[in-house]
Amino acid sequence: MDLTKKMTKLAHDAHEASFSMASLAGGKKTKILKGMAKALLKNKSSILKANDKDIKNGRSKGLSSALLDRLALNDKRIELMGSSIIDVAKLKDPVGVVLKHWRRPNGLKIAKVSVPLGVILVIYEARPNVTAECVSLSIKSGNSIILKGGSEAYNSNRAIVSVFKDVLRKMKIPQAAVSFVTSTERKSVDELLVLNQYINVVIPRGGEGLIRKIVEKSKIPVIKHYKGICHVYVDEYADEAVAERIVVNAKLQRPGVCNACETLLVHEKIARSFLASCLKSLQDKGCEIRGCDKTRAIVDSCWNLRPIHKATEQDFATEYLDAILSVRIVRSLEEAVAHIKKYGSAHTDAIVTKKKKKADMFVKYVDSSSVMVNASTRFSDGNQYGLGAEIGISTDKLHARGPMGLEGLTSYKYVVVGNGQIRV
Amino acid sequence: MDLTKKMTKLAHDAHEASFSMASLAGGKKTKILKGMAKALLKNKSSILKANDKDIKNGRSKGLSSALLDRLALNDKRIELMGSSIIDVAKLKDPVGVVLKHWRRPNGLKIAKVSVPLGVILVIYEARPNVTAECVSLSIKSGNSIILKGGSEAYNSNRAIVSVFKDVLRKMKIPQAAVSFVTSTERKSVDELLVLNQYINVVIPRGGEGLIRKIVEKSKIPVIKHYKGICHVYVDEYADEAVAERIVVNAKLQRPGVCNACETLLVHEKIARSFLASCLKSLQDKGCEIRGCDKTRAIVDSCWNLRPIHKATEQDFATEYLDAILSVRIVRSLEEAVAHIKKYGSAHTDAIVTKKKKKADMFVKYVDSSSVMVNASTRFSDGNQYGLGAEIGISTDKLHARGPMGLEGLTSYKYVVVGNGQIRV
Repeated sequence: MDLTKKMTKLAHDAHEASFSMASLAGGKKTKILKGMAKALLKNKSSILKANDKDIKNGRSKGLSSALLDRLALNDKRIELMGSSIIDVAKLKDPVGVVLKHWRRPNGLKIAKVSVPLGVILVIYEARPNVTAECVSLSIKSGNSIILKGGSEAYNSNRAIVSVFKDVLRKMKIPQAAVSFVTSTERKSVDELLVLNQYINVVIPRGGEGLIRKIVEKSKIPVIKHYKGICHVYVDEYADEAVAERIVVNAKLQRPGVCNACETLLVHEKIARSFLASCLKSLQDKGCEIRGCDKTRAIVDSCWNLRPIHKATEQDFATEYLDAILSVRIVRSLEEAVAHIKKYGSAHTDAIVTKKKKKADMFVKYVDSSSVMVNASTRFSDGNQYGLGAEIGISTDKLHARGPMGLEGLTSYKYVVVGNGQIRV
Repeated sequence: MDLTKKMTKLAHDAHEASFSMASLAGGKKTKILKGMAKALLKNKSSILKANDKDIKNGRSKGLSSALLDRLALNDKRIELMGSSIIDVAKLKDPVGVVLKHWRRPNGLKIAKVSVPLGVILVIYEARPNVTAECVSLSIKSGNSIILKGGSEAYNSNRAIVSVFKDVLRKMKIPQAAVSFVTSTERKSVDELLVLNQYINVVIPRGGEGLIRKIVEKSKIPVIKHYKGICHVYVDEYADEAVAERIVVNAKLQRPGVCNACETLLVHEKIARSFLASCLKSLQDKGCEIRGCDKTRAIVDSCWNLRPIHKATEQDFATEYLDAILSVRIVRSLEEAVAHIKKYGSAHTDAIVTKKKKKADMFVKYVDSSSVMVNASTRFSDGNQYGLGAEIGISTDKLHARGPMGLEGLTSYKYVVVGNGQIRV
């Protein structure tokens, strides 16, 4: 069978299976997920063996040690996978929920009832635990899922999916509800991206380059964020100690992720004392600082700070994903908001202030998918928000926005019940 | 200025204006809308004069009398436009609504708060009242709107928009919040459809051909339905009198619209007696019937029914938009659902039955944006659902589905309030 036919069949079968998935009772879905968690543990050794293959291939391909670490599985990581599936199993069934209901003057009863989206295509890179996360979310939300993982994790992903499919088979669920693209050819993705008659949404998880390519080619709606240029604005009314703790955490707790802070904006009235202390902490922890002219002047005047480079336009528009922070001093909250509007990516932006009025203004004017007050940008995450898990983060305005869990994987239908009403 | 530059400026300005629109207080928006309704009445004569031009142009172009009727304005129609704007003005402000809120164990307070989408591009055909409807919905929902109406209604639309812009100017609202594409060139739409940095959603209102062209070219998400192949399924447990009333209404009350019924499915156990009476009513009212073999046999055996043509595969897949109905006798509810799955357009489908269990099955298995029980498909409409007005109907599963009013023109952001929390 050629690739086009193969991918069309895969998507068609996933679409067919989605009808069974949509009508599964909540209890049955919980059972499937518990079965999958159990099966993962039971089949640890075969999964680890497959993972070994990927690690060996990765080494010989010269993958970086960071990438190899993300790729590697061990007993503990498989147990974590299992427990995260159990976490999803325990969430409330998001399907069949009456989101709203009302009655019309003519007696018609109208309800908005949640339904699954149908078929989800997830395209992702090296981490094999994403496989378990996405499968559990799609089953819980009554969807079919098609997984296209990175070629580096091919054997691991295939082993995990085969364990899951075994559970589906035993529970008499169509196996096409969880599909795995076995072709490692990049062209298989291109084939899938035009099948909008079968696939309802594409969720790419990966770097900006990958996502742009997918958006370019897709005939199916893509839920995505390109990058996370997150800001912390330290207002003139900030508690400086709180602000420092938040900035250090937002930048350095895990610099390589999308909700890490890339730019610090500081009100000029608080800049001197705040930066003297905060930049010291950051530099001590190995963070490189790049600053506007005013920031550089402050740094130059502090004997215990190392000199810094100038932050260019390019810096403010860059997602470093590294221990680098650009810093800019602003004259007002409005200037901070304007900076965020110009350079931000609508992902997550925070204000640190003690004044409620300032916080409210920031929340109102910053048009990002998550806006934080007196908290680290690092909280912008499905688990941290209590959504149970996360299938992606969206900076779009249509459908899901921000961290996206089960609810983002559902749509709704209107159910109208009458007793013979006709329109006059 | 060339067309590309002109359209880019238009979209850019609408985008800039959207920030002011997003932060307008509810009371201000009500005031603007009331001002617009009043201004319409005050400027009746200039609008009617512009409309006259369109009507004359339409006549000389040889537009059908149906189209000319849709295009024509008169005192009463302008008054209706005004009162429908007042209806929208009275609706609750959909922006800034706390959709959900909860507290995390670490004390973070998380809220999902509704926000406008930003900039809406509406592309529509001849009816000038659509202009008023769309403008009022977009203002109420805090969005900017770009209108591209049909060339037939060019003068009428321009006159209406100019009245609206005057109100914006007097109320010190950026006039780019309501933009009107003055170029009648089709190419202007193509230019707009790639400006996804400025425009958040495209809503086409018109025929399937128009919509397909837009989807093909758009880089911006399109909310749409291609067609409405709506079904009424008369179950074996239907009240036959109720069923007949619903079928006649769903087919004939206004055959040219998307929520009119195109196919009648009848359970074989009830078919003979039901069709004998129902088809008589339909034929008496001038409806052409096309039927499956079993239907034709019944028709042939009834002395008072005129002979009918066979309904082909093509018939079942056609949106007649006319007084034509295809009829098929099915052996079970499951067969009816399968037919709807195969030929339906996920718009609106209805069951007529006295058995709750059958109704529940139908509601569960029919994957359409509106599912009706014992009511006419003609109710599938924003006004009929009590949404105040309708900017479109969506058969997609992402973002809005079914009749789409104010809520569909909003997204949300997460607002997270802490007291210094950092991630550990």
